[in-house]
Amino acid sequence: MSGNKAVAYKGPGIVEVIDTPFPTFELQDGPGVNPANVGRKVPHGVILRTVTTNICGSDQHMVRGRTTAPENLVLGHEITGEVIEVGPDVEFIKVGDICSVPFNISCGRCRNCKERKTGICLNVNPDRPGSAYGYVDMGGWVGGQAEYVLVPYADWNLLKFPDRDQALEKIMDLTMLSDILPTGFHGAVSAGVTVGSTVYVAGAGPVGLAAAAGAQLLGAAVVIVGDLNEERLAQARSFGCETINVGNGDPADQIEQILGVREVDCGIDAVGFEARGHGHGAGAQEAPATVLNSLMDVTAAGGALGIPGLYVTGDPGAVDDAAKHGSLSLSLGTGWAKSLSFTTGQCPVMKYNRQLMMAILHDKIQIAKAVNAKAISLLDAPRGYAEFDAGAATKYVLNPNGYVNN
Amino acid sequence: MSGNKAVAYKGPGIVEVIDTPFPTFELQDGPGVNPANVGRKVPHGVILRTVTTNICGSDQHMVRGRTTAPENLVLGHEITGEVIEVGPDVEFIKVGDICSVPFNISCGRCRNCKERKTGICLNVNPDRPGSAYGYVDMGGWVGGQAEYVLVPYADWNLLKFPDRDQALEKIMDLTMLSDILPTGFHGAVSAGVTVGSTVYVAGAGPVGLAAAAGAQLLGAAVVIVGDLNEERLAQARSFGCETINVGNGDPADQIEQILGVREVDCGIDAVGFEARGHGHGAGAQEAPATVLNSLMDVTAAGGALGIPGLYVTGDPGAVDDAAKHGSLSLSLGTGWAKSLSFTTGQCPVMKYNRQLMMAILHDKIQIAKAVNAKAISLLDAPRGYAEFDAGAATKYVLNPNGYVNN
Amino acid sequence: MSGNKAVAYKGPGIVEVIDTPFPTFELQDGPGVNPANVGRKVPHGVILRTVTTNICGSDQHMVRGRTTAPENLVLGHEITGEVIEVGPDVEFIKVGDICSVPFNISCGRCRNCKERKTGICLNVNPDRPGSAYGYVDMGGWVGGQAEYVLVPYADWNLLKFPDRDQALEKIMDLTMLSDILPTGFHGAVSAGVTVGSTVYVAGAGPVGLAAAAGAQLLGAAVVIVGDLNEERLAQARSFGCETINVGNGDPADQIEQILGVREVDCGIDAVGFEARGHGHGAGAQEAPATVLNSLMDVTAAGGALGIPGLYVTGDPGAVDDAAKHGSLSLSLGTGWAKSLSFTTGQCPVMKYNRQLMMAILHDKIQIAKAVNAKAISLLDAPRGYAEFDAGAATKYVLNPNGYVNN
Amino acid sequence: MSGNKAVAYKGPGIVEVIDTPFPTFELQDGPGVNPANVGRKVPHGVILRTVTTNICGSDQHMVRGRTTAPENLVLGHEITGEVIEVGPDVEFIKVGDICSVPFNISCGRCRNCKERKTGICLNVNPDRPGSAYGYVDMGGWVGGQAEYVLVPYADWNLLKFPDRDQALEKIMDLTMLSDILPTGFHGAVSAGVTVGSTVYVAGAGPVGLAAAAGAQLLGAAVVIVGDLNEERLAQARSFGCETINVGNGDPADQIEQILGVREVDCGIDAVGFEARGHGHGAGAQEAPATVLNSLMDVTAAGGALGIPGLYVTGDPGAVDDAAKHGSLSLSLGTGWAKSLSFTTGQCPVMKYNRQLMMAILHDKIQIAKAVNAKAISLLDAPRGYAEFDAGAATKYVLNPNGYVNN
Repeated sequence: MSGNKAVAYKGPGIVEVIDTPFPTFELQDGPGVNPANVGRKVPHGVILRTVTTNICGSDQHMVRGRTTAPENLVLGHEITGEVIEVGPDVEFIKVGDICSVPFNISCGRCRNCKERKTGICLNVNPDRPGSAYGYVDMGGWVGGQAEYVLVPYADWNLLKFPDRDQALEKIMDLTMLSDILPTGFHGAVSAGVTVGSTVYVAGAGPVGLAAAAGAQLLGAAVVIVGDLNEERLAQARSFGCETINVGNGDPADQIEQILGVREVDCGIDAVGFEARGHGHGAGAQEAPATVLNSLMDVTAAGGALGIPGLYVTGDPGAVDDAAKHGSLSLSLGTGWAKSLSFTTGQCPVMKYNRQLMMAILHDKIQIAKAVNAKAISLLDAPRGYAEFDAGAATKYVLNPNGYVNN
Repeated sequence: MSGNKAVAYKGPGIVEVIDTPFPTFELQDGPGVNPANVGRKVPHGVILRTVTTNICGSDQHMVRGRTTAPENLVLGHEITGEVIEVGPDVEFIKVGDICSVPFNISCGRCRNCKERKTGICLNVNPDRPGSAYGYVDMGGWVGGQAEYVLVPYADWNLLKFPDRDQALEKIMDLTMLSDILPTGFHGAVSAGVTVGSTVYVAGAGPVGLAAAAGAQLLGAAVVIVGDLNEERLAQARSFGCETINVGNGDPADQIEQILGVREVDCGIDAVGFEARGHGHGAGAQEAPATVLNSLMDVTAAGGALGIPGLYVTGDPGAVDDAAKHGSLSLSLGTGWAKSLSFTTGQCPVMKYNRQLMMAILHDKIQIAKAVNAKAISLLDAPRGYAEFDAGAATKYVLNPNGYVNN
Repeated sequence: MSGNKAVAYKGPGIVEVIDTPFPTFELQDGPGVNPANVGRKVPHGVILRTVTTNICGSDQHMVRGRTTAPENLVLGHEITGEVIEVGPDVEFIKVGDICSVPFNISCGRCRNCKERKTGICLNVNPDRPGSAYGYVDMGGWVGGQAEYVLVPYADWNLLKFPDRDQALEKIMDLTMLSDILPTGFHGAVSAGVTVGSTVYVAGAGPVGLAAAAGAQLLGAAVVIVGDLNEERLAQARSFGCETINVGNGDPADQIEQILGVREVDCGIDAVGFEARGHGHGAGAQEAPATVLNSLMDVTAAGGALGIPGLYVTGDPGAVDDAAKHGSLSLSLGTGWAKSLSFTTGQCPVMKYNRQLMMAILHDKIQIAKAVNAKAISLLDAPRGYAEFDAGAATKYVLNPNGYVNN
Repeated sequence: MSGNKAVAYKGPGIVEVIDTPFPTFELQDGPGVNPANVGRKVPHGVILRTVTTNICGSDQHMVRGRTTAPENLVLGHEITGEVIEVGPDVEFIKVGDICSVPFNISCGRCRNCKERKTGICLNVNPDRPGSAYGYVDMGGWVGGQAEYVLVPYADWNLLKFPDRDQALEKIMDLTMLSDILPTGFHGAVSAGVTVGSTVYVAGAGPVGLAAAAGAQLLGAAVVIVGDLNEERLAQARSFGCETINVGNGDPADQIEQILGVREVDCGIDAVGFEARGHGHGAGAQEAPATVLNSLMDVTAAGGALGIPGLYVTGDPGAVDDAAKHGSLSLSLGTGWAKSLSFTTGQCPVMKYNRQLMMAILHDKIQIAKAVNAKAISLLDAPRGYAEFDAGAATKYVLNPNGYVNN
């Protein structure tokens, strides 16, 4: 147990599996650890042996060099694991429990946590409200694309699966509870999706597909998914979504062909700040406001936009000065005339993960199939990053300790 | 009863009282009437003798020439009146009733009205969802800054006051139910104001002051109002608000002096697209995104922004090309990092006016005093427009038929 | 068009098809018409040629002689029809439209309607808030188990189906929008059913089955239906529900066998005041508080009870004096200790029917199959009443004008 | 620090100040301690020196001998204190903090706590969900009417006041945050009180007065309080409530005299199971269903009933067999016909205490004055109990350590 292989960011475009220290109940200094967090005691934590840990689209922002992530930052915030050691202050979580870890780290003791706003916990990140494992500017909690990982405030953060065997049997679905399923679902919820809604999801990556599946679970009448990537659109069609290729013309026109009207009740932005312009195929330029402006156009008056897609406060690699500072040129006048509302931000995973676990355990959603989940070994992580970045219609699930039978 | 004096837009900067036809139960052709609405039968309407009708900040957008409003458009969407004639399809409203008219015209028969979204009624404006009296591109319903006015779908639209004498006694308060009190209140509600909230209201015009008073009614702990106009800020202080002059430095610094922290729970934009930059005093340039970006800065993570301030889809008089098309450069990255939500659009007045009437009738809010309401004659309307445009801390209430005792 | 065959109550246990007058745009005197409603003008109404009209469990209360319903009362409040004549005040509904009629009649002009509380409209029933077609003490609006029926306030009340052919193709599902599907769905919504919930529905009659199907549509993880009638329980199992026969022992024990715990998140009472005691098989005595007390027992702390099952203010045929006056002996102490909440009353159909129509049209729910809908002729209505009263696991749909192809 | 004077129940009608052990970070055996809780380690706890601790109406149920409370049970669940020692697992609360303690003990780690349902925490009471200090059948956590008290899960449970001096200055208001102010406020919130509501509060004891003050804070237009006790009614009038003496006739008649209509929008039961019949003055018999049936009568269709008044599962001292088992004869038929909803249970204090603290600190509510708070010494507790039981219109605040300047 002395070592801990982990996936690390090594510079723009490069991830490698490196040797890192085995976690202890203290946050050690290391790449990206906020000085105010160095030496922080974690008696309320547990050490997990990783069962699964997924590669996320937001990891790609770092890997593409679009952030200030330091070299050797251990990546990974989508974690499911088995508890192998509990800190002295842990009361209810036990060794042997198989648990899902919400990607947002939270303390369970601040005002925001008490209000269920665990995505903006006040006590875990000295820089700003909100934190995550293995992410730049998030306090320095070590990433979970590793054999072992420390989870603080374990009684609060962990969602224990009720039965070990059942959990391992459905692990490829349950692994999505740490981030993309709640994130997509939150997008759907905050877009106002309910029984009978018509929904447009911009983006057919894993979060977009999860938003689409989440919208179905909420009872949507029609879910339409838009993207430029035909392989991802085929994935969306595989579970009953309608699709539009945004490279083939105005989304409103294509929506009209499907619904008979040019607008939907609910719009979801599952793309975020690295959006590319419509109508230009694979060579499209980045156009960060495109998706939101398009959503305001196709969402009916009185509707809502859920925006799980990430927008950043600074993006040194952006196409223009405004975008470099996180500013977007938004057609707010259009939104205002239509009385639209907008919900942004990290999904507070804990608000949704228990109910979504129930839906998985009782076969109400097949999220692994919807996002085309594929388990690969930890050592194959660099390949997974590369294929995902190239647009594969696949959600890569790392399997560092052989829990998943391929 | 053959004539009907009314306030009309005569060109940029000019309003005049003109003679217009007495209303009938049919929408006649005239300035700004949508061709599809010409000749529309209104058997469900009533004719009101105007008790009060207020000058609104949104009227000023037209008068300043910032819209395509045609010459001779009769202005006025803030109307309280006495019913003098009822159409054949009116069942519950009776001659002699004193009623408040929601500024948004709605049919009470479409999907949106059935969902209480009366600000985006589908049946009254051929151009787009939503309508109002006396406003450009809103279908052509004749304005109410007049002696008499037609109100369609009267059983649905009108809020009858329970007692005539009581109504006339409190008329300077009740007149605010047609627009600014519900509009400000909606800003507060959609900003999430509740018991104990800290609130920042950008803008100390009538809507801002109504939002502040509405926030107090909702139980806010502290309401801070910001503006460049000291007279309006004094008005805000008169009913217990804290104030900051945004010309005197960063709002966050000033909020910190008041609250001890740099952020509030709830932010309200009561300014809209004609915002001016901070920090430059009276000569400040327009900077349409300033207010929203500032609100994102001073609203705490997890908070919400209510945006009753008007943003338009096109503004020929704007300072730059983007703003001319209703686009704003917004720091959405900041908003996203803080998990903020945003609610835009016309207030659906009917959702709030009854409960706010109850609050007025039982002395829970003194809105006339809060906005410094002042009754003037119909003939004095041009002076009222001019003084209001010059920044008077006054809400002008026209009194066309002498109901108000000055 | 001069006649209008209709199903009428003729005395305890007896229904007959009788000849009645063709409807006009005025509420005529007749059996059960409130004197204050006699002669009421209905220019806002339409006359429908009935497409389908269903027999409802609440009709049975009258037919069993448990109410003061007068002889010759025309029954029927579950109506779908084709518009054949429109009153002069109808603006948006047109001749030829196929429409669903919410069973609760409402005006669209009172405070409650404006607040979407159409089950307690203030203007249609002189006796009390709320009304329905063909029901005792509901104002006297003539029932729809007939060839033709008058629907007042048609622009407000009617839900128009978007396409005639599609509507007639799915008519056996769409006919459930007038009452039982929204009613069951309202039970589920008010019980707090959401994605991942565990749900117990007491009663496997049509409303119970609709509540179960509605709970599934809302994303429930597990839906358990309890009844004494094995045929109805088999019907529940046919669409994926778990079932318990409440004659076989304590529901909590049986729930534990299914879920592993003795409690569910959400409880729905789809039985009402004619409940029979558990544990006694077919000969069980009425025990009106049984169902609610049992639901308080099996609903987990923090849960909610939706109570679409009807409870009446007076029941001359009840087993004891308290029940005769609508009083029940409830274990409120148990409910209080568990912090339960309770929602009673008529479903406000208009709040849900549009979204449920979308779910039907897009194949998200198969309600006709779930409730085992069976079309019969108008003349067969007496047989339908008798079979339904005897416990048939069938929802009887009358087909007075041959629209339904059997 | 070796002793700890505390108020104990000594038998029906008797409370005494006794010597008890100083608290430690372990739950010791003692009167009323659940065996499963004996020896429970509390490293997450703090020891408070009591600043204030109030006598509550629900304490009286025990003192009157209406429960199975054992002799020597230390009473007191309304606690405000200064932290004098922190357990090893406490991270954010510090020695010297002045804090309010929610009366419901909760772990901050179970499903219900994560859902803000702290009144039904799953981990603190082996008997059932939910717990409280110093209360029978609540797990055995020692009461706080003492010089010192142990508070478990302190980072989660405690509400720290921002400033010590300010806290001590407003301590007679802030002391109400531990129970009656949130409890009354929860009653108002769950009764649907909002801006403009008309409200009837049954009961003018401290919880009823707090509900009334809470309703005012929520913007109610009119708050009417009913009781048999004229002194308490005078107290209600002192802060702007209307009042009715329920001994003087039908509440509906008296409400009509005040409002002009016989019904209110919102009903609050601040009495509970020890209700006495109307119309009989001081000698009235207990009639446990009276209050709820009366509230169903006077609450308008579509309204809601908040029920903070305690109803118990067993009451050996009740007037009849049904009531002995916690059953009440309720006119549910009336409630159903009016589509009423009902919310029962302990107030989850943590959901409200922070916002109510803000309202107190910013002078938006004067709760001490509203309930006529009076500080007395710990030794005077027996007198306080006796006077309160005799109907004094006073809220007794114990002052065990001299923090309050009388």
